[in-house]
Amino acid sequence: MKYPETPAVLVKDKHFKLADVSTDDKGPFDEKYAHKESAEPRLAALRQRLAELQENLYAEHQRSLLLVFQAMDTGGKDGAIGNLLTGVNPAGVQVAAFKAPSPVELAHDFLWRVHLKTPARGHIGVFNRSHYEDVLVTRVHGLIDKKTAHQRFDDINNFEQLLTRNGTHILKFFLHISKKEQAERLQARLDDPAKRWKYEPGDLKERAHWDDYQDVYSDALAHCSTDGAPWFVVPADHKWSRDLAITEIVVAALENMDPRPPTADFDVKAQVIK
Amino acid sequence: MKYPETPAVLVKDKHFKLADVSTDDKGPFDEKYAHKESAEPRLAALRQRLAELQENLYAEHQRSLLLVFQAMDTGGKDGAIGNLLTGVNPAGVQVAAFKAPSPVELAHDFLWRVHLKTPARGHIGVFNRSHYEDVLVTRVHGLIDKKTAHQRFDDINNFEQLLTRNGTHILKFFLHISKKEQAERLQARLDDPAKRWKYEPGDLKERAHWDDYQDVYSDALAHCSTDGAPWFVVPADHKWSRDLAITEIVVAALENMDPRPPTADFDVKAQVIK
Repeated sequence: MKYPETPAVLVKDKHFKLADVSTDDKGPFDEKYAHKESAEPRLAALRQRLAELQENLYAEHQRSLLLVFQAMDTGGKDGAIGNLLTGVNPAGVQVAAFKAPSPVELAHDFLWRVHLKTPARGHIGVFNRSHYEDVLVTRVHGLIDKKTAHQRFDDINNFEQLLTRNGTHILKFFLHISKKEQAERLQARLDDPAKRWKYEPGDLKERAHWDDYQDVYSDALAHCSTDGAPWFVVPADHKWSRDLAITEIVVAALENMDPRPPTADFDVKAQVIK
Repeated sequence: MKYPETPAVLVKDKHFKLADVSTDDKGPFDEKYAHKESAEPRLAALRQRLAELQENLYAEHQRSLLLVFQAMDTGGKDGAIGNLLTGVNPAGVQVAAFKAPSPVELAHDFLWRVHLKTPARGHIGVFNRSHYEDVLVTRVHGLIDKKTAHQRFDDINNFEQLLTRNGTHILKFFLHISKKEQAERLQARLDDPAKRWKYEPGDLKERAHWDDYQDVYSDALAHCSTDGAPWFVVPADHKWSRDLAITEIVVAALENMDPRPPTADFDVKAQVIK
């Protein structure tokens, strides 16, 4: 399908590098919207349409939509997911957040816990972090080597193909921030007692691996962006254009799926309700 | 690996046909064992070794073994599984029986409910029926066409590859009986009030599709027997040689895996227990 024009970059080839994508580009939004406020009517219209499309998807009960969110710490996953889903009936949405794996999860293959949480027909499933962690954090910390990572890329592509063949449409978003932006957001979390619960001293240890993460992210996105399950790199230094870009893409994908409530399989006129 | 000589036939190529395999062949057992009783010492020795190997697998906690059983009705899945596992510590075994899928299961891809039940590290997992039902019964009854069935063969091979790459060894057994043998076993279930709970009138409807089932089984076994996850066709008109063949193969596969308890990661001598 053709996706709408947004600042987000669709990853198309095996040589993709994150370094080639700006983190603060507003792309076509720069001309359309002078500032955050001027984009609000468009965002509100998209959200309303998203709620309608989700209801049709639910009524149809044939297909599902899976949205995968990945980012560096403070990249905005929670914010983007919250923004996107505000106004959608929670009964039709399943959000799964993947933390460090439990002993039971570690006792199975790396896709086991993820497969369990894939959306049922009629639902929108959202992954806050995902199976991609198993080719990112594990690789940066030397728990798996490049060969295993590339085997896992194959496993991931096969798994996502299984899902798409069975009616699950997949969109994957990498929220792309600069190292400088992360510094500011981490500092804000430290400074603001209301935000401090989001800060962990361990975040600084991961920040020290920034360049390694950019490399393994580039490799994963380059090898696992497919027609059926594309990766979008969303410039995410500006929250409003990040959120608008994601919402534009999700709504366009659902419009393209065109879910419809089933037609009656009985004679409507013959039903007499007394 | 090299498997032991038994009446079971390892499926090796894409042109495999069930019709080429006898259902009552005792193969090398014919010469070795005059009758059922003369094979019992061997079976007892294998079972004891199986219990030891399973304990080592459990202690090692790195790998797992998955055994898949498929057969026509009355083919002997329950009997074979019960015979094989008698004497193994149930704490290290997970048996999953797959019946007609529930609405929640149907709301996901066909491998979802199966993936959930794959064995954890250290365990032997047994599937009484499996994901193969989704390329058998669905195909005989026209719920999926040949193209979809062959797509699913790919999905199954990819899925089993994921499991084997993550430390799960897989062995798959088709218990092969003749149509005549099925008639006798169904009649016995009807005649014996103690066995009648196993009989359903619907069994006759499936029996009428005997030849179709043999065809789709042949196709599935031919396309989904891989080095990492081989299919064995076990002549199963004679229960004792069926059970001995399966036990020989399972024990040989575990011997080849050679599971070992972990060595102490602490100084054993420094531990002073007062």
